Amino acid sequence: MRLATVRMRGSSGSETVAAMHSEEGWRRLRSPDLSALLAGQGTPQVDGEVLPDAEPVLPLPRPGKVICCGLNYADHIAETGRDNPAYPTLFAKYADTLVGPADDVVVPRGLQVDWEAELAVVVGDVLRRADRRAAENAIAGYTVANDISIRDWQYRTAQWFQGKAWDRTTPIGPVLVTPDELDPEAGLDISCRVNGHVMQGASTKTLVFDSADLLAYVSTFTTLRPGDIVLTGTPGGVGVARDPQVFLADGDVLETEIAGIGRLRNTIRFTD
Amino acid sequence: MRLATVRMRGSSGSETVAAMHSEEGWRRLRSPDLSALLAGQGTPQVDGEVLPDAEPVLPLPRPGKVICCGLNYADHIAETGRDNPAYPTLFAKYADTLVGPADDVVVPRGLQVDWEAELAVVVGDVLRRADRRAAENAIAGYTVANDISIRDWQYRTAQWFQGKAWDRTTPIGPVLVTPDELDPEAGLDISCRVNGHVMQGASTKTLVFDSADLLAYVSTFTTLRPGDIVLTGTPGGVGVARDPQVFLADGDVLETEIAGIGRLRNTIRFTD
Repeated sequence: MRLATVRMRGSSGSETVAAMHSEEGWRRLRSPDLSALLAGQGTPQVDGEVLPDAEPVLPLPRPGKVICCGLNYADHIAETGRDNPAYPTLFAKYADTLVGPADDVVVPRGLQVDWEAELAVVVGDVLRRADRRAAENAIAGYTVANDISIRDWQYRTAQWFQGKAWDRTTPIGPVLVTPDELDPEAGLDISCRVNGHVMQGASTKTLVFDSADLLAYVSTFTTLRPGDIVLTGTPGGVGVARDPQVFLADGDVLETEIAGIGRLRNTIRFTD
Repeated sequence: MRLATVRMRGSSGSETVAAMHSEEGWRRLRSPDLSALLAGQGTPQVDGEVLPDAEPVLPLPRPGKVICCGLNYADHIAETGRDNPAYPTLFAKYADTLVGPADDVVVPRGLQVDWEAELAVVVGDVLRRADRRAAENAIAGYTVANDISIRDWQYRTAQWFQGKAWDRTTPIGPVLVTPDELDPEAGLDISCRVNGHVMQGASTKTLVFDSADLLAYVSTFTTLRPGDIVLTGTPGGVGVARDPQVFLADGDVLETEIAGIGRLRNTIRFTD
């Protein structure tokens, strides 16, 4: 099943609706968005109206938690000069950090803006002190994210948070694919392109901690709820680890893709 | 003005109400709690019913953001072996991390549980890219917090989050004191006692970054909204920096106090 939060193309309003993809295209579900749908406000049904002009927007507008794993692909760990970790490195974002799959990412001029293509796992059930199996069963689905990072702020102090939680800088979407259709452990190609040039390319099978590992681990200390999101980390090829370093410029087009899910396409815009 | 979220003593239910302190005691406000009051759902008024059996509970049950500053008192910075910082070190918690001013703090047995007495500043207005003056004007008030930290998890990786965001481990309260009654820059005594022994004692005038500094800085990258909370960091005397190290044990009584605001009193409870 492929789910999304959609808006009618060309509509000026901000009204959205949850939708399920079918052979005829997007069909309306009885929820305003996937945050509401996963929270149990509305049930998926197969007979909703077909929405011919629907386009996916930010799928989960109100996650209670957005928790991110760093240093989780062997090649990315190597490029940062570290060893494979015993524990996942975790940091937090908020709902405000997210932005839609086709939205501009607007940041003040003069910052070191870098890309991090990531598989995101969405929680479908309440999880607290869950084992791996319970965590696996609680996965609502997978989507694509780019953990765009403001590197100069990330490294101002030892704690990354202030470089990772800029409002509307983490694009996510375009769709949520349920686990029956997709197996990241078997390997999904994940890639990031800047103005058409491939900057990151890897397989999700090289993740050190997979989605179920991460949900179980996080649930040891904090409750995960339907609609919460865990970003699983980025593969090698980030701009800050290149020689010379490369950062995003005004007008750059960032494409983030995972095979079997879909593609984000975001333009970077600098403001004064 | 002293505000709180209160519950009727001895009531079995979970119903709360926002209240304002007067000479006659707590008076009812027309909001269920201070999160709702600050979000504009209800107006403070002086003629509410007196609540003789009211006791303060978790004042802000639904902050959108709880952002914490580390390493912000000169003596605590020294005990961790660091220099005074150019930028605040920031990390995140969630609403789930908070617990009431008299609640037990329940954690699994075998963890390194440590105290961090802190002044917390509560946001009263929307803040985005605010200067210091705008930030100062947006302070709804001050309260007391203890950023109880699970040290072994905090130091499993370089990112502190997983040791700082255990559900219901950050007591906060008991009251919110408005800025017209209190000036942390002029110096408020802040202290932490374990079973009656003073473990931390300092003045808020030695903060490197004060409340307005922190709100302005955070608002550079993310929007702060009414009811959001910023913890301003802890003074010297934490258990992990002692020689030998000291951690909290089952049954320990942790008291956290700031002169002019009030005192938290929480018992540590270990579970299997």
